[in-house]
Amino acid sequence: MVDPIELNDALERLQAFLDGADLDGAVDFLRTLHPADSAELIAELEPEQQGAVVDLLQAPELAEVFEQLDEEDMADVAQHLDVEMLADVLDEMEPDMAADLLAELEPEQAAEVLEQMEEPADVAALMTYAPDTAGGIMTAAPPSLRRFWTVTESIRFLRLHYAEEEDFFALYVLDRHARLIGLVDLKALILAEPEQTVEEIMDRTVISVRATADQEEVAQLLQRYDLVSLPVVDDEERLIGIVTIDDVVDVIEEEATEDIYHLAQMSPDSEIYSPILEAVRNRLPWLVVNLGTAFLAATVVTHFESTIAQAAVLAAFMPIVAGQGGNAGTQTMTIMVRSLALKEIAPRDTFWALWHEARVGVINGLTMGILVALIAGFWQHSPYLGLVLGLAMLSNFTIAAMAGVVVPMILKVTRVDPALASGIFVTAFTDIFGFLVFLGLATYFLQYLA
Amino acid sequence: MVDPIELNDALERLQAFLDGADLDGAVDFLRTLHPADSAELIAELEPEQQGAVVDLLQAPELAEVFEQLDEEDMADVAQHLDVEMLADVLDEMEPDMAADLLAELEPEQAAEVLEQMEEPADVAALMTYAPDTAGGIMTAAPPSLRRFWTVTESIRFLRLHYAEEEDFFALYVLDRHARLIGLVDLKALILAEPEQTVEEIMDRTVISVRATADQEEVAQLLQRYDLVSLPVVDDEERLIGIVTIDDVVDVIEEEATEDIYHLAQMSPDSEIYSPILEAVRNRLPWLVVNLGTAFLAATVVTHFESTIAQAAVLAAFMPIVAGQGGNAGTQTMTIMVRSLALKEIAPRDTFWALWHEARVGVINGLTMGILVALIAGFWQHSPYLGLVLGLAMLSNFTIAAMAGVVVPMILKVTRVDPALASGIFVTAFTDIFGFLVFLGLATYFLQYLA
Repeated sequence: MVDPIELNDALERLQAFLDGADLDGAVDFLRTLHPADSAELIAELEPEQQGAVVDLLQAPELAEVFEQLDEEDMADVAQHLDVEMLADVLDEMEPDMAADLLAELEPEQAAEVLEQMEEPADVAALMTYAPDTAGGIMTAAPPSLRRFWTVTESIRFLRLHYAEEEDFFALYVLDRHARLIGLVDLKALILAEPEQTVEEIMDRTVISVRATADQEEVAQLLQRYDLVSLPVVDDEERLIGIVTIDDVVDVIEEEATEDIYHLAQMSPDSEIYSPILEAVRNRLPWLVVNLGTAFLAATVVTHFESTIAQAAVLAAFMPIVAGQGGNAGTQTMTIMVRSLALKEIAPRDTFWALWHEARVGVINGLTMGILVALIAGFWQHSPYLGLVLGLAMLSNFTIAAMAGVVVPMILKVTRVDPALASGIFVTAFTDIFGFLVFLGLATYFLQYLA
Repeated sequence: MVDPIELNDALERLQAFLDGADLDGAVDFLRTLHPADSAELIAELEPEQQGAVVDLLQAPELAEVFEQLDEEDMADVAQHLDVEMLADVLDEMEPDMAADLLAELEPEQAAEVLEQMEEPADVAALMTYAPDTAGGIMTAAPPSLRRFWTVTESIRFLRLHYAEEEDFFALYVLDRHARLIGLVDLKALILAEPEQTVEEIMDRTVISVRATADQEEVAQLLQRYDLVSLPVVDDEERLIGIVTIDDVVDVIEEEATEDIYHLAQMSPDSEIYSPILEAVRNRLPWLVVNLGTAFLAATVVTHFESTIAQAAVLAAFMPIVAGQGGNAGTQTMTIMVRSLALKEIAPRDTFWALWHEARVGVINGLTMGILVALIAGFWQHSPYLGLVLGLAMLSNFTIAAMAGVVVPMILKVTRVDPALASGIFVTAFTDIFGFLVFLGLATYFLQYLA
């Protein structure tokens, strides 16, 4: 049994070899590790050391390393290799991973590498699909059987053609037009009698997906039907590849990260290790857009300058009304955005959601309004200040709930990612409306406040 | 080939049967569907209709339905069944799902059901593990082989004992103390010669996990090593179960949802379909805690009442400084929280992250400060207002970056979930410091502003 290694310890050992200029020792050490671990260590090295290590690895070893790296690290490692070596490495890689690596190269370089490859067909075919579709994440050509073959014939066929292939989890059955008609899982093949035909042991209810389907749809199908692999077909129902569940795990994690970063109003490409200027580019535009709405809210406040001049204490409580409304709106908006992403709710549920969230908003608004009214009223010895604050809180919570439902739904219907822009609109609403209703009420009751 | 059904159309058809009081028609229709789909439809029904449909299903059919439901829906459907029927259904279910269902029942009811079961041992054993550990999400007893068996003997053994089992993706090899010593994937078994021994075709580098390991660690291992199933062992390295990747997909989605809701400052149990009072309970406490920090910030403002009374325009720009600082701090905090969750960063990287984020903060603060200074300066014809605003923005962005790094790291080290509480502290910092520095500077330059 192998325990997963502690990567930090391993990195220190690797660094010790390299610091002692013992390149062979370093490479021998990497060879003792699981490819996932050695790939991660290589990705962590400084460029010169990385280049030196990569130079000593064989094409099949490099193929294993590349298959474990994410796209950014792929590009870094690839720059140490010349066109010929890259072509050899790509020939050894799974076609879907090879296509991902090619996509990271400069277009002319990728074309040169493709030309040098021995078997470029599978990879070139994969590169025609958009990267976030079933075609873009699928891998090519799983073993396929014909329905009239016997179990013995099928096993002989697999031995002949697929002994060297990666693991596969299911075998697909095609008709003579290469159309998908059934599925044989490996367990069924092992347990079948040698003379049974494929047709007798195959499962005809194969769930499949078109190559153009969005990767989120693919992830949902694999999850909903608890599948390990999902066949991908073209417009004529011909099998052209499969998507396996490990690709889906990455998709789910990636989509969750994107939503989290969108909700925090920054680019979904953000990474803690982004270079400084890239980090600035990933965040600054969102701050600028927000500044626009902040100035809109400031304009509202400037209309009440004479009220504030007479009762400066209002300035202290103004941000509470806007901020608490913003928090309540963000809660509703976030639950809407996540439920839309997980397909738990759809735009046709808008009225139901409005009614649901309005009640939550009114209850929370009433509770928080009374709380704020009591605290501020006693603190400032002013029941009218309490009254104005309480009413403003209740109104802003109600508006916040509406905005929290309506904004994501409108974005969804207009095919904008709700996670992308909901936050800006919802907080703009709660800021502007919060200031307006609080300062408006305060102006009305000014004689009791000043 | 079966296309995934459109659930809404199916629900309408099912409803039509039920509205026509054609219960048999409804059940026959459900039987034509994939278990994942019929389970989802049953979960959507009103309680009385659900009870009527459930009454007509057989124990093996109900077992399939339960295996597809999430925990809340499980509890709803289970209440239509008596103890005896529940025991029959549980006997048909996968042990890990059966344990999940039992956990949803009242303790006394669960005990009664366990007593009525024919084979309670596997399920009872599973129930001893915490639900968010490897033991809690594993399923029991995959087929295991002995190393000296031949391929022919192994296949005969599988036919005898495992023909009726769920799909399996790998076979594990145990020594005579039931300790895990190797793995045989099904492909290797298919391609092997009949007289080869298990020892010859097994892979000795099996990655496994302890039963007490956290489900997040399990998810990371399966992802890092691209595994479809991961064996779970006890303290003596004995195989006691496996976790499959479809469980991990659910874990990853669940953990992402929890983080998203925590970041939006609400309970991770939030659901769009929560009853109103439960929704209030999931959100109100977070708003109350936030109110505490908001009043702290208000206290700061009240100390500058005389400044604001003399230059009421300050009230309009005060929320811009605090709000923009809050946005910048939330960006940094969110990227830290997500990177910690994905193990891309650890507390030992605190100084590196501080230096990284400080530079981003200063660049963004400088840019936004200049922008705000120019807009406000020209709008209000007051270069001093611009100067005060610009300086306050720059300072608040710098503080925001520090807080955005330090707060999640402190929470991580003190074993509080960083997603849980970072937001409250970071925005408290940016509000309080933002008001303080802006109004402080304004007071200093008051003669030029009033």
